[in-house]
Amino acid sequence: MAKQWGGRFSGKTDALVEQLGESVSFDARLAPWDIRGSIAHATMLGDQGIIAKKDSKAIVRGLRELAKDIAAGKVTFDPALEDVHTNIEVELVRRIGEAGKRLHTGRSRNDQIATDVRLWLRDQIDDARIAVTALQRALVEFGEAHRDAILPGCTHLQHAQPVLLAHHMLAYYEMLNRDYQRLGEIRSRVNVMPLGSAAMAGTPYPIDRLAVAKALEFESVSANSMDAVSDRDAFIEFCSAASLVMMHLSRLCEELILWSSPELAFVEIGDAFTTGSSIMPQKKNPDVAELVRGKTGRVYGNLMSLLTLLKGLPMTYNRDLQEDKEPLFDTADTLLLSLNVMARMFGDIRVNREALKAATAEGFLEATDMADYLVERGVAFREAHGVIGRIVRHAIKQKKTLPELSLATLQRFHPDFGDDIHRALTPEAIVGRRDNIGGTAPKRVKSALAKAKRDLDKR
Amino acid sequence: MAKQWGGRFSGKTDALVEQLGESVSFDARLAPWDIRGSIAHATMLGDQGIIAKKDSKAIVRGLRELAKDIAAGKVTFDPALEDVHTNIEVELVRRIGEAGKRLHTGRSRNDQIATDVRLWLRDQIDDARIAVTALQRALVEFGEAHRDAILPGCTHLQHAQPVLLAHHMLAYYEMLNRDYQRLGEIRSRVNVMPLGSAAMAGTPYPIDRLAVAKALEFESVSANSMDAVSDRDAFIEFCSAASLVMMHLSRLCEELILWSSPELAFVEIGDAFTTGSSIMPQKKNPDVAELVRGKTGRVYGNLMSLLTLLKGLPMTYNRDLQEDKEPLFDTADTLLLSLNVMARMFGDIRVNREALKAATAEGFLEATDMADYLVERGVAFREAHGVIGRIVRHAIKQKKTLPELSLATLQRFHPDFGDDIHRALTPEAIVGRRDNIGGTAPKRVKSALAKAKRDLDKR
Amino acid sequence: MAKQWGGRFSGKTDALVEQLGESVSFDARLAPWDIRGSIAHATMLGDQGIIAKKDSKAIVRGLRELAKDIAAGKVTFDPALEDVHTNIEVELVRRIGEAGKRLHTGRSRNDQIATDVRLWLRDQIDDARIAVTALQRALVEFGEAHRDAILPGCTHLQHAQPVLLAHHMLAYYEMLNRDYQRLGEIRSRVNVMPLGSAAMAGTPYPIDRLAVAKALEFESVSANSMDAVSDRDAFIEFCSAASLVMMHLSRLCEELILWSSPELAFVEIGDAFTTGSSIMPQKKNPDVAELVRGKTGRVYGNLMSLLTLLKGLPMTYNRDLQEDKEPLFDTADTLLLSLNVMARMFGDIRVNREALKAATAEGFLEATDMADYLVERGVAFREAHGVIGRIVRHAIKQKKTLPELSLATLQRFHPDFGDDIHRALTPEAIVGRRDNIGGTAPKRVKSALAKAKRDLDKR
Amino acid sequence: MAKQWGGRFSGKTDALVEQLGESVSFDARLAPWDIRGSIAHATMLGDQGIIAKKDSKAIVRGLRELAKDIAAGKVTFDPALEDVHTNIEVELVRRIGEAGKRLHTGRSRNDQIATDVRLWLRDQIDDARIAVTALQRALVEFGEAHRDAILPGCTHLQHAQPVLLAHHMLAYYEMLNRDYQRLGEIRSRVNVMPLGSAAMAGTPYPIDRLAVAKALEFESVSANSMDAVSDRDAFIEFCSAASLVMMHLSRLCEELILWSSPELAFVEIGDAFTTGSSIMPQKKNPDVAELVRGKTGRVYGNLMSLLTLLKGLPMTYNRDLQEDKEPLFDTADTLLLSLNVMARMFGDIRVNREALKAATAEGFLEATDMADYLVERGVAFREAHGVIGRIVRHAIKQKKTLPELSLATLQRFHPDFGDDIHRALTPEAIVGRRDNIGGTAPKRVKSALAKAKRDLDKR
Repeated sequence: MAKQWGGRFSGKTDALVEQLGESVSFDARLAPWDIRGSIAHATMLGDQGIIAKKDSKAIVRGLRELAKDIAAGKVTFDPALEDVHTNIEVELVRRIGEAGKRLHTGRSRNDQIATDVRLWLRDQIDDARIAVTALQRALVEFGEAHRDAILPGCTHLQHAQPVLLAHHMLAYYEMLNRDYQRLGEIRSRVNVMPLGSAAMAGTPYPIDRLAVAKALEFESVSANSMDAVSDRDAFIEFCSAASLVMMHLSRLCEELILWSSPELAFVEIGDAFTTGSSIMPQKKNPDVAELVRGKTGRVYGNLMSLLTLLKGLPMTYNRDLQEDKEPLFDTADTLLLSLNVMARMFGDIRVNREALKAATAEGFLEATDMADYLVERGVAFREAHGVIGRIVRHAIKQKKTLPELSLATLQRFHPDFGDDIHRALTPEAIVGRRDNIGGTAPKRVKSALAKAKRDLDKR
Repeated sequence: MAKQWGGRFSGKTDALVEQLGESVSFDARLAPWDIRGSIAHATMLGDQGIIAKKDSKAIVRGLRELAKDIAAGKVTFDPALEDVHTNIEVELVRRIGEAGKRLHTGRSRNDQIATDVRLWLRDQIDDARIAVTALQRALVEFGEAHRDAILPGCTHLQHAQPVLLAHHMLAYYEMLNRDYQRLGEIRSRVNVMPLGSAAMAGTPYPIDRLAVAKALEFESVSANSMDAVSDRDAFIEFCSAASLVMMHLSRLCEELILWSSPELAFVEIGDAFTTGSSIMPQKKNPDVAELVRGKTGRVYGNLMSLLTLLKGLPMTYNRDLQEDKEPLFDTADTLLLSLNVMARMFGDIRVNREALKAATAEGFLEATDMADYLVERGVAFREAHGVIGRIVRHAIKQKKTLPELSLATLQRFHPDFGDDIHRALTPEAIVGRRDNIGGTAPKRVKSALAKAKRDLDKR
Repeated sequence: MAKQWGGRFSGKTDALVEQLGESVSFDARLAPWDIRGSIAHATMLGDQGIIAKKDSKAIVRGLRELAKDIAAGKVTFDPALEDVHTNIEVELVRRIGEAGKRLHTGRSRNDQIATDVRLWLRDQIDDARIAVTALQRALVEFGEAHRDAILPGCTHLQHAQPVLLAHHMLAYYEMLNRDYQRLGEIRSRVNVMPLGSAAMAGTPYPIDRLAVAKALEFESVSANSMDAVSDRDAFIEFCSAASLVMMHLSRLCEELILWSSPELAFVEIGDAFTTGSSIMPQKKNPDVAELVRGKTGRVYGNLMSLLTLLKGLPMTYNRDLQEDKEPLFDTADTLLLSLNVMARMFGDIRVNREALKAATAEGFLEATDMADYLVERGVAFREAHGVIGRIVRHAIKQKKTLPELSLATLQRFHPDFGDDIHRALTPEAIVGRRDNIGGTAPKRVKSALAKAKRDLDKR
Repeated sequence: MAKQWGGRFSGKTDALVEQLGESVSFDARLAPWDIRGSIAHATMLGDQGIIAKKDSKAIVRGLRELAKDIAAGKVTFDPALEDVHTNIEVELVRRIGEAGKRLHTGRSRNDQIATDVRLWLRDQIDDARIAVTALQRALVEFGEAHRDAILPGCTHLQHAQPVLLAHHMLAYYEMLNRDYQRLGEIRSRVNVMPLGSAAMAGTPYPIDRLAVAKALEFESVSANSMDAVSDRDAFIEFCSAASLVMMHLSRLCEELILWSSPELAFVEIGDAFTTGSSIMPQKKNPDVAELVRGKTGRVYGNLMSLLTLLKGLPMTYNRDLQEDKEPLFDTADTLLLSLNVMARMFGDIRVNREALKAATAEGFLEATDMADYLVERGVAFREAHGVIGRIVRHAIKQKKTLPELSLATLQRFHPDFGDDIHRALTPEAIVGRRDNIGGTAPKRVKSALAKAKRDLDKR
């Protein structure tokens, strides 16, 4: 079968060029969306009298059959026909004859491919948002299941202040909330129909773009034909948003990996989500967390590919743009797999309460509250900070924790310490005191969990 | 003056560490926003009775004086004091004494710096949106000023179909419209107040976060203290959005550079926006367009820096995050300068109508419409395409343009050509025929320009 | 078939984890190199008496058979067995029984995979260097075929000074020379054998690493076992070097695209290396150049993926490293295809001498030499530059080229112009005058071409 | 003072364009190298009789004075004069009059700036190699100081096998060895002189490029003038090499941060290299390690900036290239500071031997050697692996370490265990057994340290 553009050409395409130029090896996955778009286009062509009604009907019938056969794996695509569009059109013509040749009236591959990818990406975004929600739910449930667990909150990976494990999980819940929102905003920029822009200037045929958009559930149609065929913003935005999701996951994975180490042992990830070593029989490795963390680089790289691709391209469609698909596809696949596997893994993580408790006793987590204790008694914060610093130095030398220091000892450093000081320094007391919007007090965390569940249920 | 954290330390900081760790050399620009945040915080501390009203008033008064002196260039910051926050606090204490030491009650540098940058970034986004609008206006005005100019629309940098220059400009208008929208969405994610999260777990002081947020015009307060001090999403989002703007500008610049080349000579950029050569006296170079195109890499690089920075960081604040500011500052500066210089340059570009006209005659821009002509007469599009391809081949051999071919010649290729064919192939006829939403027909372009102006006026 | 590490596990691996963790879908291509490495390892195990000679022989024989069967497409890999190594080992055991289980003695998948990829990459580098050489040869031949063709050399895409087309091509020859050199240097860093580092600490078996290295033609063996299993430097270096090659190609492609535009029309790329449009019958698009330019982003992205991947990973092997292969494979494939298709395309590019000649008359390319003419007559360069600038301004107003200005006119601007001035301003004279190392004088270019051919022949 | 290219211009440069185009705010640091290059150029011009000897001498004398004054901070550069070159030339003319105007004969800013940056970068590379060496030396000394310290070697951040701390340090030594080698290779590609390529085509003046190259200690001169003025390969290569160094440092920093956490507490970094918290008095944070890890993103971003910058630029010099300097400067500065501060920090790190010892008892580090024990007694490795896996599972249930299991217990899992098994499982025995090239046996590590010192001394 000849190329769709052969008329003015006399020479044959070079074999390496065929290999370089073909895209059906990766754009074949767009077939369902391509056909959906073509059905809407053909229907409109018939309705507008641009082609005969009977041709339009034949096309739609043919495409529906073809879609079924493709889904059933009965159709083989031919790389010599370059892309999924040509493969489908050629197969259609083979099946229904002349009428099939009228399908491409009033459109070009330039607006067709842009439409296909948008239809596909819209679905991917919906799937990604469902997956984000699933992981959020898993985090909330994990938090709820361990609602009174306290662990050492860190800055600089040094113990800072005790926090509820549920509070810690809700930090990731918040990150994913922003991800969910971002993906939603991008969806509406994806959901704009370029079809009808034809090659780049619009088409002389009396097409009805709004009717096609309605059939395809697009929110709006593109306002400028030149922009429409060359715009890849939404694809880049999607990769940016995916990069942020992956960045968030990489942080969560980093923590799971740390928490799984023998020295911390805060959690144990179940057998279904860990693997062993071919040589070291004792190993139980947090591979899932490592693989997801590693996949961050992949998505960042895809984003960089697309940004580089578009840089400095003149109007309008340039063949460079064929390179937009693989990074986009890979990003969507990676994102979905990463989110889904993380959500499932959280159902199989055991928390080691003893290890948390032991860790919370280390690292002088009570220091800030000791300073605040003095401030409440009228000492300026900066001065209190200095006093406690010296007490910490003393405790290190004595190999003691802060609660282990006697009142007498503390009073040597500042006279305002009273006999209520030790009561004030239990992890529970410290956590309970942070009772402000966003704070780690159990009361606050409880209502944050409840709100999270309500919000998730509303989606 | 001592560090704010010296209590438990006995050794002195290494000189290289001072150099590595100081940030005041670049975060000094945050001073006005830092002070604004501190004023709101201090006022609330007084209102809540956390510190004495007189202390609170002394702090506010002191900070107001200090802000004026900083603006007047009367305050020198000391790198040994690390950052802008410490410099300001130390200077405040020097000026107002003990009361100044109470300012830091109930907050940490972790939530303070996050708040400062958000206040600053909110303003940058507002400025960037104004600059986007200015460039959009310049493009619309440029389009209007040349409303009947036709140029060869390109795909693959090959002549495709004639389009109105104004239509071409409106493609960029649309890109910038998306940029404007995106920046607006990011603004509301920036406009969330982290203050009150303290080090990372919240604070035991009875602070009133909502009051502070109101005073600082934040839309909401952060919902989780751990997220609040480690979240840099909005900074990355801003760099992503800026990358898209720069990508758009890089495309526009590429075209201006091409259009300024002697072979195309579609436009001449004015003396105020071009430069010469130190060695070649004839040169008049489109440096502005080249520099802006070049700055695209800078912003992409900043985005990549921030994404890399955050990858795999455990909760919550880690000192790595100090590295978030320079790429962010540079991005905001580059974005604003690039947009503003582009907007001004469009006021000084002369269009060479003769060159446009000559170019429009080249490259067989009429071919698609010749095919459509046959389709209207009942030929299937795929067949018509082949016929015209052969005609083009013939024309090339004869060194003729398509309109120069006689009717007789055309009929040798297909009998359906009639004597109206030549009338149908003028650039005006071709452009006029693309009369659909988003098409290049003058009627459509006129109303697109009008709508654009209305929309810009509404902002 | 069981995992290689199942001993301590009781739970079953989650289905999504299987999908996340399997690599055989992409590392299957390493099979020939994996087997080659295993043969060398098994032979050494036998020679050292670590396993019985007859076992060693059985393994080697089994692996050779297996290699043939894999090459013949007779072996199907099972994703449930995770990776190519396990698939091969399991298949080997199925075929030869117990002896096969002794193959993994004294090594780990950690050092095995590192070895496999290095063997593979060494070959890729050799192929890439051959492809670089082929493109260099094509450029030199292209230059030779058009040795007296002159075109306007540009800076800022503005005409600067006339240059020989061959000189222009030699600029790319030089870039590729550096690429060739770089790839060679990387090859020697790739060519270091990690095998024998086992999991990460070395092995207690009395292995002979030097013997294995010799059998596998490695130049040296790794000096530290922990570094050996976690080092991916050479993969990143390869992607960096490939990024530079692609950057060079993107520049060359940009020029071919510009040169193919109707306004410049310096070259016409043959039918075998261009494609048409599905809608515009006249189109002949430089798709190859566009696709290669577009693939630059892909390789940059791969580089960024790998850099991100490795950032902040603690010692030694972490599962994140599984993500190293796809970007590396894709880079090698893209590089080879891009170089090869470019080399072939240069055999099918027609140069339009008339267009070059016409272009060389435009843009005041003679200006620098007019200034130099005055300098030779004693005028300071800075002053001469100003004089010629004013002459150019005059010529623009008069719509004349510089050679079209009369001597009298020139003398109005400076008295030192003599009647030899017009002779000095032909493109040939200007080009000929740049007779220094690296200059565009025909004499210099001729010897540069000759040297290039000699150097290429020596490879 | 007028621009150097004003002749043909009548309009004034726009104020924003001045801001956009000026580079002296960042290229001023090139002044010493610019002057060095100009002195060599002027001397050659005089020697070749291109300008008068007395002019040449006046220029050289003037430049020498100027260099001194600049070094003494007595010269203020003017942004209106764009760049460092023009500032210097204008100041020279102001000082020595007409002769100064002859300096720019036979060169252009295009080859001048390329030469300046290469001279500068050559010095930066030398400095960077010294800094790499210093850090290598610090690692070796640190390793030596703790030569018998054993810590748990990890894969997947899970305990794998015991290793010597010195062996661990030598892994980083090896990484830095590759960095040192790479920087050396890049140096020779930097060390090629572009001067004499003039604007882009060479110069008609009878310059002696080899003489200038010799005076400036360049190894060779560029072979093609067009390549010479547009080549930025070596700058990108430098950023690639720096990215690898930073990646290595980010890994080392990650480990120092982990090792400083209260749960591991393997090391304590001294007061001079840690900082505290403004709110939490107990904090002692490994800020240096965090900042250096964070700076990795910065250097990656710079690399991406440069790669993006060059993508698709046509020949030859384009103004985009002005953007090459800031990322390059920042990379060199960041690299040097990071290496130097790391080297110094290693002189102030205390190792906690008790913590290492305790950690080495955890995590079943003996498992591989238990398997090997069985293999030595004739069990196939795959089978032994399974046996030990089951023993580990048993030990976990019993809350015992492997050495705590009795011989009787072990024999229940496999009859081949003998009474020498416990002796075989001490950390010292395990480490000592890995006595192969690159292994962690003390004997091997001792000689690796000795070799490292010899190699460093030879530099």
